[in-house]
Amino acid sequence: MAQPPVTAAQTPPTVPGARMWGGRFSSGPAPEMDLVNRSLPVDRRLWRHDVRGSRAWASALGAAGVITLTEAADLRSGLDAVAARLEKWTEADWAAATDEDVHTLVERLLGEEAGPVAGKLHTGRSRNDQVATDFRLYGMEAAAALDAGLRGVQQALVDLAESHVDTVMPAYTHMQRAQPVSAAHWLLSHAWPLARDRERLADASHRIAVMPLGSGAIAGCPFPVDRVLLKESLGFRGLSPNSVDAVADRDWVAELLFVGAMAAVHLSRLAEDLILFATSEFGFVRLSDEYSTGSSLMPQKRNPDALELARGKAGRLIGDLTGMMALLKGLPSGYNKDLQEDKAALFGAMDALGVVLPAVAGTVATMTIDTARCAAAVDSAMLATDLADFLVRRGVPFREAHGAVGRLVRAAEGLGCPLSAVPGEVFNHVSTEFVGADLEALFNAKASIEARDSIGGTSPSSVAHQIAELRAIG
Amino acid sequence: MAQPPVTAAQTPPTVPGARMWGGRFSSGPAPEMDLVNRSLPVDRRLWRHDVRGSRAWASALGAAGVITLTEAADLRSGLDAVAARLEKWTEADWAAATDEDVHTLVERLLGEEAGPVAGKLHTGRSRNDQVATDFRLYGMEAAAALDAGLRGVQQALVDLAESHVDTVMPAYTHMQRAQPVSAAHWLLSHAWPLARDRERLADASHRIAVMPLGSGAIAGCPFPVDRVLLKESLGFRGLSPNSVDAVADRDWVAELLFVGAMAAVHLSRLAEDLILFATSEFGFVRLSDEYSTGSSLMPQKRNPDALELARGKAGRLIGDLTGMMALLKGLPSGYNKDLQEDKAALFGAMDALGVVLPAVAGTVATMTIDTARCAAAVDSAMLATDLADFLVRRGVPFREAHGAVGRLVRAAEGLGCPLSAVPGEVFNHVSTEFVGADLEALFNAKASIEARDSIGGTSPSSVAHQIAELRAIG
Amino acid sequence: MAQPPVTAAQTPPTVPGARMWGGRFSSGPAPEMDLVNRSLPVDRRLWRHDVRGSRAWASALGAAGVITLTEAADLRSGLDAVAARLEKWTEADWAAATDEDVHTLVERLLGEEAGPVAGKLHTGRSRNDQVATDFRLYGMEAAAALDAGLRGVQQALVDLAESHVDTVMPAYTHMQRAQPVSAAHWLLSHAWPLARDRERLADASHRIAVMPLGSGAIAGCPFPVDRVLLKESLGFRGLSPNSVDAVADRDWVAELLFVGAMAAVHLSRLAEDLILFATSEFGFVRLSDEYSTGSSLMPQKRNPDALELARGKAGRLIGDLTGMMALLKGLPSGYNKDLQEDKAALFGAMDALGVVLPAVAGTVATMTIDTARCAAAVDSAMLATDLADFLVRRGVPFREAHGAVGRLVRAAEGLGCPLSAVPGEVFNHVSTEFVGADLEALFNAKASIEARDSIGGTSPSSVAHQIAELRAIG
Amino acid sequence: MAQPPVTAAQTPPTVPGARMWGGRFSSGPAPEMDLVNRSLPVDRRLWRHDVRGSRAWASALGAAGVITLTEAADLRSGLDAVAARLEKWTEADWAAATDEDVHTLVERLLGEEAGPVAGKLHTGRSRNDQVATDFRLYGMEAAAALDAGLRGVQQALVDLAESHVDTVMPAYTHMQRAQPVSAAHWLLSHAWPLARDRERLADASHRIAVMPLGSGAIAGCPFPVDRVLLKESLGFRGLSPNSVDAVADRDWVAELLFVGAMAAVHLSRLAEDLILFATSEFGFVRLSDEYSTGSSLMPQKRNPDALELARGKAGRLIGDLTGMMALLKGLPSGYNKDLQEDKAALFGAMDALGVVLPAVAGTVATMTIDTARCAAAVDSAMLATDLADFLVRRGVPFREAHGAVGRLVRAAEGLGCPLSAVPGEVFNHVSTEFVGADLEALFNAKASIEARDSIGGTSPSSVAHQIAELRAIG
Repeated sequence: MAQPPVTAAQTPPTVPGARMWGGRFSSGPAPEMDLVNRSLPVDRRLWRHDVRGSRAWASALGAAGVITLTEAADLRSGLDAVAARLEKWTEADWAAATDEDVHTLVERLLGEEAGPVAGKLHTGRSRNDQVATDFRLYGMEAAAALDAGLRGVQQALVDLAESHVDTVMPAYTHMQRAQPVSAAHWLLSHAWPLARDRERLADASHRIAVMPLGSGAIAGCPFPVDRVLLKESLGFRGLSPNSVDAVADRDWVAELLFVGAMAAVHLSRLAEDLILFATSEFGFVRLSDEYSTGSSLMPQKRNPDALELARGKAGRLIGDLTGMMALLKGLPSGYNKDLQEDKAALFGAMDALGVVLPAVAGTVATMTIDTARCAAAVDSAMLATDLADFLVRRGVPFREAHGAVGRLVRAAEGLGCPLSAVPGEVFNHVSTEFVGADLEALFNAKASIEARDSIGGTSPSSVAHQIAELRAIG
Repeated sequence: MAQPPVTAAQTPPTVPGARMWGGRFSSGPAPEMDLVNRSLPVDRRLWRHDVRGSRAWASALGAAGVITLTEAADLRSGLDAVAARLEKWTEADWAAATDEDVHTLVERLLGEEAGPVAGKLHTGRSRNDQVATDFRLYGMEAAAALDAGLRGVQQALVDLAESHVDTVMPAYTHMQRAQPVSAAHWLLSHAWPLARDRERLADASHRIAVMPLGSGAIAGCPFPVDRVLLKESLGFRGLSPNSVDAVADRDWVAELLFVGAMAAVHLSRLAEDLILFATSEFGFVRLSDEYSTGSSLMPQKRNPDALELARGKAGRLIGDLTGMMALLKGLPSGYNKDLQEDKAALFGAMDALGVVLPAVAGTVATMTIDTARCAAAVDSAMLATDLADFLVRRGVPFREAHGAVGRLVRAAEGLGCPLSAVPGEVFNHVSTEFVGADLEALFNAKASIEARDSIGGTSPSSVAHQIAELRAIG
Repeated sequence: MAQPPVTAAQTPPTVPGARMWGGRFSSGPAPEMDLVNRSLPVDRRLWRHDVRGSRAWASALGAAGVITLTEAADLRSGLDAVAARLEKWTEADWAAATDEDVHTLVERLLGEEAGPVAGKLHTGRSRNDQVATDFRLYGMEAAAALDAGLRGVQQALVDLAESHVDTVMPAYTHMQRAQPVSAAHWLLSHAWPLARDRERLADASHRIAVMPLGSGAIAGCPFPVDRVLLKESLGFRGLSPNSVDAVADRDWVAELLFVGAMAAVHLSRLAEDLILFATSEFGFVRLSDEYSTGSSLMPQKRNPDALELARGKAGRLIGDLTGMMALLKGLPSGYNKDLQEDKAALFGAMDALGVVLPAVAGTVATMTIDTARCAAAVDSAMLATDLADFLVRRGVPFREAHGAVGRLVRAAEGLGCPLSAVPGEVFNHVSTEFVGADLEALFNAKASIEARDSIGGTSPSSVAHQIAELRAIG
Repeated sequence: MAQPPVTAAQTPPTVPGARMWGGRFSSGPAPEMDLVNRSLPVDRRLWRHDVRGSRAWASALGAAGVITLTEAADLRSGLDAVAARLEKWTEADWAAATDEDVHTLVERLLGEEAGPVAGKLHTGRSRNDQVATDFRLYGMEAAAALDAGLRGVQQALVDLAESHVDTVMPAYTHMQRAQPVSAAHWLLSHAWPLARDRERLADASHRIAVMPLGSGAIAGCPFPVDRVLLKESLGFRGLSPNSVDAVADRDWVAELLFVGAMAAVHLSRLAEDLILFATSEFGFVRLSDEYSTGSSLMPQKRNPDALELARGKAGRLIGDLTGMMALLKGLPSGYNKDLQEDKAALFGAMDALGVVLPAVAGTVATMTIDTARCAAAVDSAMLATDLADFLVRRGVPFREAHGAVGRLVRAAEGLGCPLSAVPGEVFNHVSTEFVGADLEALFNAKASIEARDSIGGTSPSSVAHQIAELRAIG
């Protein structure tokens, strides 16, 4: 009968720093298990957040009387010492650490710095609510960095737009020349989606800033910790309302990945435009040397690599989002270890945006627009709609006017000449309203642009209004 | 020299109702082209929105003096007549319509109802801004319907939770029994994610309600249409600020798909829990006959099909989101026909949620919780943390307490007995703090639940607070 | 004691045709349940496969002596009668059918046609193995149709290539002009990926043609049905080796979706090239009227809609694949109702390819290549690599030659002239090997093309070889 | 006139080792550009493949007479020296290397080792065909490693199955108990999908082993290099047939990602089963200590982390596949820098499988099956189909038999007793065929299992056959 207690007593103490559990196990993990299970190589990035969260938790335990105020202060000093140590860690130090995860590492080092009181830090807390808190602290920072990156591209676009309000270029639909617009209007058409991204990011940030700490492993915290004060001290906006939900809720990760993927898609569309406009065939923009690359084989090449990479990263971001949602799908409630994969996905996505956004901003800021080639590309057929509108103003129903001008276009093609060079009698033939009209005045791209003066149109005043609005967003 | 005009004049008029263009083409589309290009079979769902948008546009053209007020009134009456006709259309009528898309159909019918004035409706408007407007009108309705569906499930969960505040059941992490919670707390852990979905949906709805009408094909509208009045008349909140962006912006579709996919993932997690809890092995819930199905082969089966389908649809919704983002990635700016695929994706996703949400709500509303089996599943090992907390309250550092209780668990396994049946001397052996303690009182699941009384915990008062908050959301 | 049997006996017979189960249920499904659960609107497409599979099963039951040969013959005749009826069904007939799924419908109609013997058909079979078999029969057909569609595009490309072996055009990397190639070589670069798709499809087809019938609900078939004969009669290649796996295996659906998505991605790349090459700026290709569309607003437009839709559908196909894999992820083994979603995904994807492939084939078959504009786009800088190769042939290390020519390119830019117009003394300055060289001969695109004569190069003989190989594939 | 040459001559030589281009640029890349553009941190993994490919290329240039045989030998020796150096590189060495990519690094080091002849290596080759070749060499190795990993899990399943041919357990459909099967049959149901994965992998490997080297930048190689000999020397199976296609073809990456994602989905289904079966409620399997983890808070926990991570990684793999396909979608032909993202995706996916597969294999190999709990879970209702089959054998049409047994099930529920405990008179009431039958013999799970003796069924002989077949695959 004495056997089991003896066995229990003989259990070797857990290896310091290795794992936070083990009392109930007769053997440690297999190497293959350790390899798949250890998350330190990924979650080490959270050490500052972990120290910060633990500092706050120590104070909360002290305030609640769960530990003494002296113990709380000792834990805080110990954590400061841990932080000071980690701040100096090299890659080699990190590679030598065999702890299961960043939380275990920090607690192990705390033991080294603060002694036995370190064993009191994890009271009433679980890694489940701890990691959820650490990761949200990271998420708040990542969202702020993403906003700054988006702002950088937005401002580069607005700055360039400001000098091209009067540059005339073709706007395209279906990649076919459609109507003349100002180059500023086109540039701003890429700034607005980024403004929307930032709006979405602000909404998402609101939901990130909800603190799970105090949810324990799953059922809540049995000690009288004041969660409201705790959240204030950590800079959160709200409190998770249900502990079972709190430890498993990664909605915000998916939402941040969505916002990031959407932004990447916007960059991919801007990149696509710029890559096309930088071809020899379009020639509307010329990228700077600093943002061009060459070829190992072809000496003449001048490649828009940053833009291609921006376009390519959009694929990756879409994949990160998809992977996260597929991961979450069908999980039972409560914490499941599958969730550990959340960090690699979000770190990867945010890092990708972190290098792409400045590169795109720099590409835009240093590129030049070839106003002559832009203007030359505005052929007279692009004013076909304006011809139809002219007829409309003379009372011709639009549908009829559209048909009449369609016949003019076809005539021009038959004659192999620009629309503006079609003989006047053909104009008169398709519609008597053209008789006596000042045809030359109708083929005026500037006038076409100025006419589109309602909100959102391409006219100079509308564009000026857009610039002012975007500047106001900051 | 007279040749081309003659040719132009000889161009046959476009077949009424077939297409809105063609004046410049010498032949119509190939059958293979027509098949891939025609969108009526999909976009017919937008006919009410198209009529509504066109009615408002007619008024705006009239107010701007582009057409006369009489013409505007005639167009509106004509559109009303078109609506009255379409309201009565059968599947056979729809199958017989060969129009390119819903806009062409409505304009063709308008011609039949209103005569030549119909040709004036499309003045200053393009299908690019028209379809973007129609689709957003649909999106606003779809978002409202989705909100109602989410609310239905949320309320079914809260209703059921209300009667199970005192039901004790195991909470699981890693699908291993973790700690006792009240069944209400578990049910509410599935209600909160839906509340977040609704919050996200509200944010998304704000961005949906932005009117593109007045952006023309791409460069804006050259007629003095008052876009502000127009948006008011259509119930939009804001105006698109840039016409190039406006005709190509499908961010809101992706965002609504994201919100829907996230909600579907939440349903999949609820479904997973319920499917497991409805197994013979768990037996915590019993689904009603109305929400169970049988087997064609096995007479005894009682299958939770609605829940499985909810889980499966989450896959589909993730795919719809992914597909939409992949579609958008790398598109040049301006309208590209690729965007036509947006509708099948969003209709499909919203329809899927439209059948899944009521089915899940019904499943929850009619299921019963087997309180006896729930209680029986709370074994004494689930109170291991409470034992450790007891030691903590006696001054033992948590990490040490955790190790001590871990040895107790191992002893219980060695003895093949429940944790509560481990002999008192073993308790005393692992920690002297257990000497003289009322061990029986420590193995009390109710007390464990009541102790977790901070915000978000599983205690009755915390649960009552959650219910009140969710009721307040409505 | 007599009570339960009485109750059991009083159970109303299941409504004919409604469901294949119900004996154990006291109430039918709720309307919300029925809506999410009924699959007939989707799986009705499988009726021919269901009849075919059932016919074979009836024979197998007869051959095994489970039913008499007369009964088997009666079932077959009955199924023929069912097929004859369904062949004539209108949309209204289908809308009126309230059966749970296509299997239930066929069995109900069989009862109407064949009388009580119909009740014997489902012996030893479950809908689990039945639907898996029906769906694979569809999959085999869909794979064949996909192969034909891919072949159509491949052949259109090869046909056009054949007449453009001597057409010179720029090849692009990073969308920057790289080196001259023959237009045939470029066209064939889009044919080879389709050949790979067809190879993948053949591999996938091998795995589709594995028969699950005879797996029962999950444990196998307890009657001595000869599965080998059965598979022969249905045209399958192999037999599923494990019944638990067989009823839940949808690998082939995912694989077919992958093959389809990969093909769609290939079409999207071809489409991207053609859309760009059909712009006014490139002008290398002109699409036929039959495969172009116009604008409702802009009379001059000529839009490559089929190509844009092909590009857009690639997004959708990627989403279908993703959705299917997310659906499968994490499912427990055995049949789960989630799998019912497989059909909408595969039908949708195959239908999309079914309309896109002929439209792309037609676009290619009817487009013309503007050889003059292609040739004009080959500027002399594209021969920079050939200049470097000339130096290499004179013994200059390539890396040095590359640098020398790079300086020539920069000089040309500085002078604002084509590379070929850089003065000879500059050539001599960057490398003495240029002294006395026939510079004009070096700037010969035809010669550059002919020089790339190894396997896979752009030379006429290599291209001819490619054409022969692709023709041999058929 | 002398100006330009002077300018050209004054161009500073490119910084050794930094980039392979630059002759034409007046400034180097911006830091932001360098950060997004440099791929060495990712593609350094390819250094062995790069050296190997370069060695073979040097020989091919020598054999073709493009360089002398001595030069070729010097290049090979130099590359060997480079390899010897890199073999010894530490993390710090890698961090100090500022080269653009692995190709530039190897060529720079080659210059240091072999002197000026290093400048001849890149003759007729571009990084476009070079990286495509390196990466395929990696792909061939990765496929082999993946096959070995899959084989490991497959064999662990077969090994365990071998000792559980006679273990009876419930098979589930819809997670409801369906029919009794042998545990071996269930285990093998997870081995077969892996066998299919390996088949797919073999097919994919065939397509990976196609050599792009000799395609140059895009137009092919102008030197008479023998590509057939070259491919033999590198272990490739075939040659890319078109240079434009060859430098941009990443089909094989997507295909390998698909095969990997499919395998991960299979692991996720196995994991789901095992996680459920390891719950207290099912209790069919017990994981070893080496493959279980504990909780930082709850001393009693025993978590199946490896399985949860395997399930979670499936999400990630699906995302990697999706991201790659979205990346490829819509790219113009020829090499585009977007493709650089291919490596992070494939490395990440293969690494994830590389840690998950051994962990799952170890989990399976060390787990135990609780035969008593498995047997106890086979309740008599699971033999309902066998009862119906009994009636069928007595001539009752199956549909009628199904209904009769359904009424028995309902009676059992009404009585609150097992199906086998329903009184005989109730049996006789629902079908007279039960009169006089040996009811006890009908409720025999072993007999039910043995009866399912057709190919793929759960009978011992069928299972033995499966084991033999899987062993034969190896």
